[in-house]
Amino acid sequence: MKKRWMICDGCSRTFPFRYDGGICVCGGVLLVQYDLEEIKHSRIRESWRERPATMWRYHELLPVAGTEHIISLGEGGTPLIRLERWEKKLDLDRVWLKREEQNPTGSFKARGFSAALSLLRERGETQVAVNSNGNAASAMAAYAARAGMEAYVFVPRDCPGMILEELVQYGARACLVDGLIHDAGKVVEDGKEEMGWVNVGTAKEPGRVEGKKTMGLELAEQLGWEMPDAVIYPTGGGSGLIGIWKAFTELKELGCVSGDLPRFITVQEVGCTPIVDSIRSGAEKIRPYGATTSRPTGVRVPRPPAGELILSIIRNTGGTAVAVTAEEIAESGKMLGQEGISASPEGSAVWAGLLRLVESGEIGTGERVALFNTAHSLKYLPWKAAATIPEIRSYDEYRALRDVDHAKPEESS
Amino acid sequence: MKKRWMICDGCSRTFPFRYDGGICVCGGVLLVQYDLEEIKHSRIRESWRERPATMWRYHELLPVAGTEHIISLGEGGTPLIRLERWEKKLDLDRVWLKREEQNPTGSFKARGFSAALSLLRERGETQVAVNSNGNAASAMAAYAARAGMEAYVFVPRDCPGMILEELVQYGARACLVDGLIHDAGKVVEDGKEEMGWVNVGTAKEPGRVEGKKTMGLELAEQLGWEMPDAVIYPTGGGSGLIGIWKAFTELKELGCVSGDLPRFITVQEVGCTPIVDSIRSGAEKIRPYGATTSRPTGVRVPRPPAGELILSIIRNTGGTAVAVTAEEIAESGKMLGQEGISASPEGSAVWAGLLRLVESGEIGTGERVALFNTAHSLKYLPWKAAATIPEIRSYDEYRALRDVDHAKPEESS
Repeated sequence: MKKRWMICDGCSRTFPFRYDGGICVCGGVLLVQYDLEEIKHSRIRESWRERPATMWRYHELLPVAGTEHIISLGEGGTPLIRLERWEKKLDLDRVWLKREEQNPTGSFKARGFSAALSLLRERGETQVAVNSNGNAASAMAAYAARAGMEAYVFVPRDCPGMILEELVQYGARACLVDGLIHDAGKVVEDGKEEMGWVNVGTAKEPGRVEGKKTMGLELAEQLGWEMPDAVIYPTGGGSGLIGIWKAFTELKELGCVSGDLPRFITVQEVGCTPIVDSIRSGAEKIRPYGATTSRPTGVRVPRPPAGELILSIIRNTGGTAVAVTAEEIAESGKMLGQEGISASPEGSAVWAGLLRLVESGEIGTGERVALFNTAHSLKYLPWKAAATIPEIRSYDEYRALRDVDHAKPEESS
Repeated sequence: MKKRWMICDGCSRTFPFRYDGGICVCGGVLLVQYDLEEIKHSRIRESWRERPATMWRYHELLPVAGTEHIISLGEGGTPLIRLERWEKKLDLDRVWLKREEQNPTGSFKARGFSAALSLLRERGETQVAVNSNGNAASAMAAYAARAGMEAYVFVPRDCPGMILEELVQYGARACLVDGLIHDAGKVVEDGKEEMGWVNVGTAKEPGRVEGKKTMGLELAEQLGWEMPDAVIYPTGGGSGLIGIWKAFTELKELGCVSGDLPRFITVQEVGCTPIVDSIRSGAEKIRPYGATTSRPTGVRVPRPPAGELILSIIRNTGGTAVAVTAEEIAESGKMLGQEGISASPEGSAVWAGLLRLVESGEIGTGERVALFNTAHSLKYLPWKAAATIPEIRSYDEYRALRDVDHAKPEESS
């Protein structure tokens, strides 16, 4: 049986492992700990490499007690590509992009729900609920379907239409909520006792952070067990960032990587920037963001439940936080599209953040930077391109159009 | 320098390697051959396993002369999952699903264009054109962007809207064509000389079949170097099926797998079934399908250019071909959705085909069947679910709705 317990990142107290409740009485975040001394052995990196390239190759560092409860749809093992043209343009040594959109359900959220629902199957749960800006809801819906559980999902009313399609497709019981993600979270909390739901929301249980941790484990493995100089990640609830940081911390303790942790840099969209505001003002505690005006994406989380841990990760690694505008995000999505990459608004925000930080000198010559594209752009697109694409019947008609230089990317957005 | 040449599958004549022209004077298909004796060594399977899990781990069996020309966006290495619940229901030993939607651009077409455009970079080409039902166009657009080439894509006017979004996003020069895929192909052929295009259409060059071959290489590796009893694949142009067959053939010659090839089973949609009709009638040659009425998906190809090779693969392996209806495809998409899988119409057709063949006894007790989901369902969905999902402001409002059992999958399609 795997040894696992919880530690509070705030007061450092330890507790027995628990499936629910992610916040300590002191307000800190409860994180899973493992007996790393027991896991540690000289060939662990080789053992991982010899297994199939899914996130479960790292099962020693995942909280399920035994592998028989794993709920998998083929998550993790996503590619890491280099953007060589941009390395030259930006005078950086390496720019890597981790393509998290190539997970099941088209986003990194798959990792968290694979781990979380595996834990809940271990415990015999059958009713799961989540509040979400969209991608977490669709991931939970898919994994619940795979696990034979009932999924109840609550998303803001302006959730992108394509994600709503997924919710229906995966058989979730879905509701739109007139409000933001925390309003949807209140519905789950208010209903969980009467409905028998397990709340699988951010910082409500240990599995999601642990699952997302595998992004960091994979990144380290893909970089030949070296750490980059900086990681840029879009932050809403923040459990992706926490997971990647936890991965590097555990790998250091296992002796799999050495040196300093990368600087953790977070990107948010103007109109909902609680982390950026706290970092820039030097606040110890996150202040909930007031009149939220940003668009319905994963980074629109005015009250991140694990906010203080995020602040401490950013500060302790010498990182920073950047707010980018909707226009910069749109422009960045086009730039990545022209590299052949399907970047969600959150992934595009990361790109916009990189450009800002290179401009300001906060990321400098010769650095090695790892970016994450968290979801497919497809999940956010309305159907509108057809109107911009000309129709023809023959090459002769095409020739007549040719000089118009139709469907040029600049003109068709 | 890698030894590579062409062999005609019809008349068995060999030719020097060529970048363009996929059909022999005799009408047969020109396929790339390698010096397998030179590649063969006792640890080749271990060498592959030790490399990153993308399709390029098999570069000895891919046609690029040197790895420096590879255009990669992180293709291949897709998961293979088991559908255990269905194994029991259908009384089959194994039902595997290969999740090709987890490729770049959300479809298996990524593999073909990664190989094809790598070859064309090797040759210094900069202008590429393709006719396509959609997914090939979006894949070519992305890989051309990555390669710094100009992409010209021609798709039927009823091409799904989400795919048109991708074409614009990846910066392709796109045209809708009033007609079917072969009408779009005529535009490319008519224009290629004047425009300097390389035609990267089906059976026009060697890269796409070779890239898709990696689906078969991966399947064999994921099955521990055993072959399944049957492979079910959706067939339009057929180069996916040809690729998987070629993979198994080469692996046998390398001594990596042993035993009989799996039965190759092809699925098409009622309303465009040239392969099914030829198989069922015992015809030697494919007759173009006349009044095409099926929907705009990858299997709507009334005149498959490599039709005779497809027929011979199906017949020589003891396979078959099945036509399924639009209703069966829709129902299958829902069934897969309720397993947590985002299945395109083509992938859903494969599922419908499996159910048919189990029903008819053509696939029987204890068999081991490999299915392919070729693309994300997202690429085919219109936004309509929102209208079926209720909106609430609180848990009290939810409770009032609860007994209505809102958003049940059965009611919301």
